[in-house]
Amino acid sequence: MIAEILSTGDEVCFGAIVDSNAAHIAAILSDMGVEVVRHDCVADDLTSIVTVLTEIGKRADIAVITGGLGPTVDDITAEAAALAAGVPLVLNHTAKSLIENFFSKFSRKMADSDIKQAMLPEGSTPIFNEMGTAPGFIIPIGKCRCYFLPGVPREMERMLDEQVASDIIRCRGSDHISSRTFMLSVFGLPEAVVNDRLKGISSVFPGVKLGMLARFPVIQVKLTVYGKDKDAIHLIGQQAKAWTVDKLGETVFSTEGHAMETEVGEVLKQNHLTIAVAESCTGGLISHMLTNVAGSSEYFLLSAITYSNQAKQNLLGVSSETIEKYGAVHEETVRQMADGIRRISGADIGLSVSGIAGPTGATADKPVGTVCIGISMSGELIGRRFQSPFQERLSNKQIFAICALDMVRRELMRLKIKGKF
Amino acid sequence: MIAEILSTGDEVCFGAIVDSNAAHIAAILSDMGVEVVRHDCVADDLTSIVTVLTEIGKRADIAVITGGLGPTVDDITAEAAALAAGVPLVLNHTAKSLIENFFSKFSRKMADSDIKQAMLPEGSTPIFNEMGTAPGFIIPIGKCRCYFLPGVPREMERMLDEQVASDIIRCRGSDHISSRTFMLSVFGLPEAVVNDRLKGISSVFPGVKLGMLARFPVIQVKLTVYGKDKDAIHLIGQQAKAWTVDKLGETVFSTEGHAMETEVGEVLKQNHLTIAVAESCTGGLISHMLTNVAGSSEYFLLSAITYSNQAKQNLLGVSSETIEKYGAVHEETVRQMADGIRRISGADIGLSVSGIAGPTGATADKPVGTVCIGISMSGELIGRRFQSPFQERLSNKQIFAICALDMVRRELMRLKIKGKF
Repeated sequence: MIAEILSTGDEVCFGAIVDSNAAHIAAILSDMGVEVVRHDCVADDLTSIVTVLTEIGKRADIAVITGGLGPTVDDITAEAAALAAGVPLVLNHTAKSLIENFFSKFSRKMADSDIKQAMLPEGSTPIFNEMGTAPGFIIPIGKCRCYFLPGVPREMERMLDEQVASDIIRCRGSDHISSRTFMLSVFGLPEAVVNDRLKGISSVFPGVKLGMLARFPVIQVKLTVYGKDKDAIHLIGQQAKAWTVDKLGETVFSTEGHAMETEVGEVLKQNHLTIAVAESCTGGLISHMLTNVAGSSEYFLLSAITYSNQAKQNLLGVSSETIEKYGAVHEETVRQMADGIRRISGADIGLSVSGIAGPTGATADKPVGTVCIGISMSGELIGRRFQSPFQERLSNKQIFAICALDMVRRELMRLKIKGKF
Repeated sequence: MIAEILSTGDEVCFGAIVDSNAAHIAAILSDMGVEVVRHDCVADDLTSIVTVLTEIGKRADIAVITGGLGPTVDDITAEAAALAAGVPLVLNHTAKSLIENFFSKFSRKMADSDIKQAMLPEGSTPIFNEMGTAPGFIIPIGKCRCYFLPGVPREMERMLDEQVASDIIRCRGSDHISSRTFMLSVFGLPEAVVNDRLKGISSVFPGVKLGMLARFPVIQVKLTVYGKDKDAIHLIGQQAKAWTVDKLGETVFSTEGHAMETEVGEVLKQNHLTIAVAESCTGGLISHMLTNVAGSSEYFLLSAITYSNQAKQNLLGVSSETIEKYGAVHEETVRQMADGIRRISGADIGLSVSGIAGPTGATADKPVGTVCIGISMSGELIGRRFQSPFQERLSNKQIFAICALDMVRRELMRLKIKGKF
């Protein structure tokens, strides 16, 4: 079953708003195992809408169309649907009573222009809109069963979930291939290398489709497994995941597609460990990420963003000799920062970051992208240096933050193996 | 000049991610006075991409296509472009040196699959990608000049701004209605209210088109002025901006469309003031925002993210009686937090935030969305309470952070008027 999606409206077409409806509809349809092959978007222009609907009628089995069903002069989708379907626009009495009911429920008076919303292509089946005045409708155009819905996301989403989905299932019948997607999260390898290592997957697992999603600086590997049997899909998914982990090693930080902060939070929670952070160049991003996870107050105690050298000395107890001899970006400095924040917070783990995010601040031996990360835990004091290839401030903040959290994750694994906690 | 936009990629087509690229490109082209008539989106499927490109080649004058230029097996857009243009895919030596330069700059080794990114349709002009490995390219398909760009937003946006826009202007020639967009940034009014207050603008200024861009929780008001004469456009733009400020009052925090953190940073820099922040529920977001601005080390000294009550007491010197009597979320608590962080940092301004971002932590008299904000400066100690209508953690963190920075901005204006600095 091949599906297409059409968004109509000047705001979407001219870029005043981002079209989140198309993604929502595509995700719902994909989850149902319907293959979405194309989205289109056109402005509030009768000829354009009729043209696209006619094309869709030749290509797709089903289509979901949003926008242009309201009472104003801009709202011309029903008219376009009638033209594309080759039927007249007529007053639909079911639609009219749906609109009347909506108004009477809220003791509101129907305006003259509201009746326009009941003018539907002849032969349409109205779709009830619980949250607004404009009903949707179903009408075949060419070989395609077309579902017309309002553009307001909460109205559209409700109608899609409750009425369109069940109609699609009814039309589809039983002989149906389903699919499931398995996600893994990877950090520390360029996309091209991940691809090179995984490109053999289709020969090992013929039913698996490989995809990759770059959520900078993390790469999400997507394994979509197709089949008719849910248990078989699950088993192949697990095998394909294990194969992927084998190819990518420790750079896979979640076999569930989690974010880094979620994964680190899980490990901390499971081991009843607490963390405190001393940030410099990342400017609070690490703490922001950690505290985006609900329940993070269980393990996140304190963070100090010591941007100035003075603050590094006064608050964290970094020695002035260290700053003078090595500067703010150095393994020794971050070791003292990590130990300082651990001490003043009473946390089990002290994490620290100091680096040069850019665009300024570089020196001859410390180019933009240099970062030092320190960890103090279980009597160990670690300081390491990394180099990011980026010149841009926000990219470096993001890569430094993930790199620091990943170092915590790896050290926790190492210390766990050594029996340190 | 008629333009179309095409997004390629499984993630976008199947709804795993929302296509924000199309809106961005449409907005940029519309601002340039180019008429965007249609967007399309197809999956990573060779036949689909070739088909759409061929259609676009018959309809549009220019097209911007994003996605599928990387090194992986999914990346088939260049191949599709070659097929649609009816030319072979060949090694482009300019593109190859662009990629080699990118790698050598960071002393990174090129993977085998990276060379694939230099295989372009014969006759293409490469577009330099400063921020990534995949170059873009320009090639005519049918009657349409097609610009192929990577799907990664920050790479795409930079290339569009710096190289594609100027090429479009060059191709377009001189007899052209130009336009200019003036942006204002607004915080503290719902979108519908902003819309109601401004909807009369077209009767006062017939040449001005009103647009609105919600960058939660900030609203950007977009005034597009059309005309042939640059000076006249500028004058009308200034008048329309003044009219808008008159309608929206103090909720307009930037008449240049700046971000809140940029605006606050500007005011601090101009007045040679420094700031330190004590965050609780915002978890580092305020500091992350402030330090996203290049040069922020001039005025941002220190931030403490005191998530636990213990940290609020030990580090910031909040009295245990205050915490016991009022709790962590209270005007008195944030006053002491603000004063504490100002004292230990030596900054001119201490800013503090404590609230309930959710989903947990609410009490009978402090529902999710409650936030207290404190400021200590010029001998004044201020604590205020606000209520956000949202239940969701990240939304509340964002609204609390902007609210805190806006309070700093307003207090600075007030104290400046009073001659306090």
